[in-house]
Amino acid sequence: MREITRVELIPLKLPIVAKDDNIGALIISSLQKEKLDINEGDVFVIAHTIISRAEGNEYFLPKLSPSPFAEYIARKTGKDPALVQLIISEASKILKVKNNIIITKTKHNWICANSAVDQSNARPNGAVTLPDDSNKSAMEINKTLTNFLKKDVSVIVSDTHGRALRRGAINVAVGSYNFPVIDDSRGRKDIFGYELTSTIVALADEVCSAAELVMGQAGEMIPVVIIRGIHFRSPVSGVEELQFDDERRLFR
Amino acid sequence: MREITRVELIPLKLPIVAKDDNIGALIISSLQKEKLDINEGDVFVIAHTIISRAEGNEYFLPKLSPSPFAEYIARKTGKDPALVQLIISEASKILKVKNNIIITKTKHNWICANSAVDQSNARPNGAVTLPDDSNKSAMEINKTLTNFLKKDVSVIVSDTHGRALRRGAINVAVGSYNFPVIDDSRGRKDIFGYELTSTIVALADEVCSAAELVMGQAGEMIPVVIIRGIHFRSPVSGVEELQFDDERRLFR
Repeated sequence: MREITRVELIPLKLPIVAKDDNIGALIISSLQKEKLDINEGDVFVIAHTIISRAEGNEYFLPKLSPSPFAEYIARKTGKDPALVQLIISEASKILKVKNNIIITKTKHNWICANSAVDQSNARPNGAVTLPDDSNKSAMEINKTLTNFLKKDVSVIVSDTHGRALRRGAINVAVGSYNFPVIDDSRGRKDIFGYELTSTIVALADEVCSAAELVMGQAGEMIPVVIIRGIHFRSPVSGVEELQFDDERRLFR
Repeated sequence: MREITRVELIPLKLPIVAKDDNIGALIISSLQKEKLDINEGDVFVIAHTIISRAEGNEYFLPKLSPSPFAEYIARKTGKDPALVQLIISEASKILKVKNNIIITKTKHNWICANSAVDQSNARPNGAVTLPDDSNKSAMEINKTLTNFLKKDVSVIVSDTHGRALRRGAINVAVGSYNFPVIDDSRGRKDIFGYELTSTIVALADEVCSAAELVMGQAGEMIPVVIIRGIHFRSPVSGVEELQFDDERRLFR
């Protein structure tokens, strides 16, 4: 049984991030500026946009040359052909084109709208893609943080995705390091001693959704949220655990 | 722009709930016992199971008489025919039967597995359905709380649902009262002054996911979580805002 404690969501402001910035170093300098101590087990949720921009995954749309296929999809959806080109480049498969939305499986195996290409919080006429390997990005930031803080912390990279069956987007995990992404309750007992047989909870996604309560979508300048007080019970796992095998997925 | 503050997730223990218990009164007595003060704007996230049980929506499976159709689906899925009968009774439409899961549209218009019928945290051989009208349940609990506390609070009723495109379940809202269920960022500006055009965030679902970080799935006996410090920006809306019209839904 889990220890009962409060959980705290702590917003961390960062300056606007540019290419080649070191996100871990920026976080450390913000922590110092705000005189914020870090505890063992603190989880850093980081909006992917700042990592993508530091890693050079921000594109200036007028510089892209759309293919005839991108032009075709652009006409169908009313989107900018250059943006469609970027969406296609990020996709391993196009699943649906409807209601001005392009649903793809991204090259990182996420099924989401517009290959997770983001125009908000990008420079004018710019668009931001996901980091090439968000797990690796999370690992590198984690290394910088633990080296400096000498504390065991976790890093999760987040993005806001729409859903298939419920309206409205929620913040979810696209990368992680040192975190139990899936909380597997199977074998634990409920209040009547009934053994839980099927509850696999997407803990990393829930942590990202929690983070967005202080992160915000617009000009808040809070791309990092520290989550304090979660008690891990499951083993550390990879963010790939949140991806269905195609044959297990019931909706196509 | 949003004021930057911390958000706190506060677990509230409740005794095991029985039929005809008054959930609002039980919450007040727990608050008193734990000497916990409530602030203006606090949000109470309540696991639907305890509301369902108080409202008599707990069924003893051996007492149900499965129809031939329920028997047929039971053979197909390997489920208990009585459980299937209950799942069918809660559905307005059966969408898919695959991998031992019955995906339905419930009579409350949620698309989810097994009509949200829950065997965990039910009595032995029992199963719990959603409250008949979770918004009304939320409103009544809210009335009891505000009458006693003299504070403006919100109530959200939660349930843990699987997703169509991502593995693992997350806690989502199935009822609410006095809460901005949808946070509509359209028209707000991002960090570069770009006007956000499409970000509609399912704030009520994110609040429920946050709550589950202290609520737990198993025998933790924490069916209520108080969320403190969220700054509302959007108007209060109904939980129906989280339901797609059938024609807007891209996955079937």
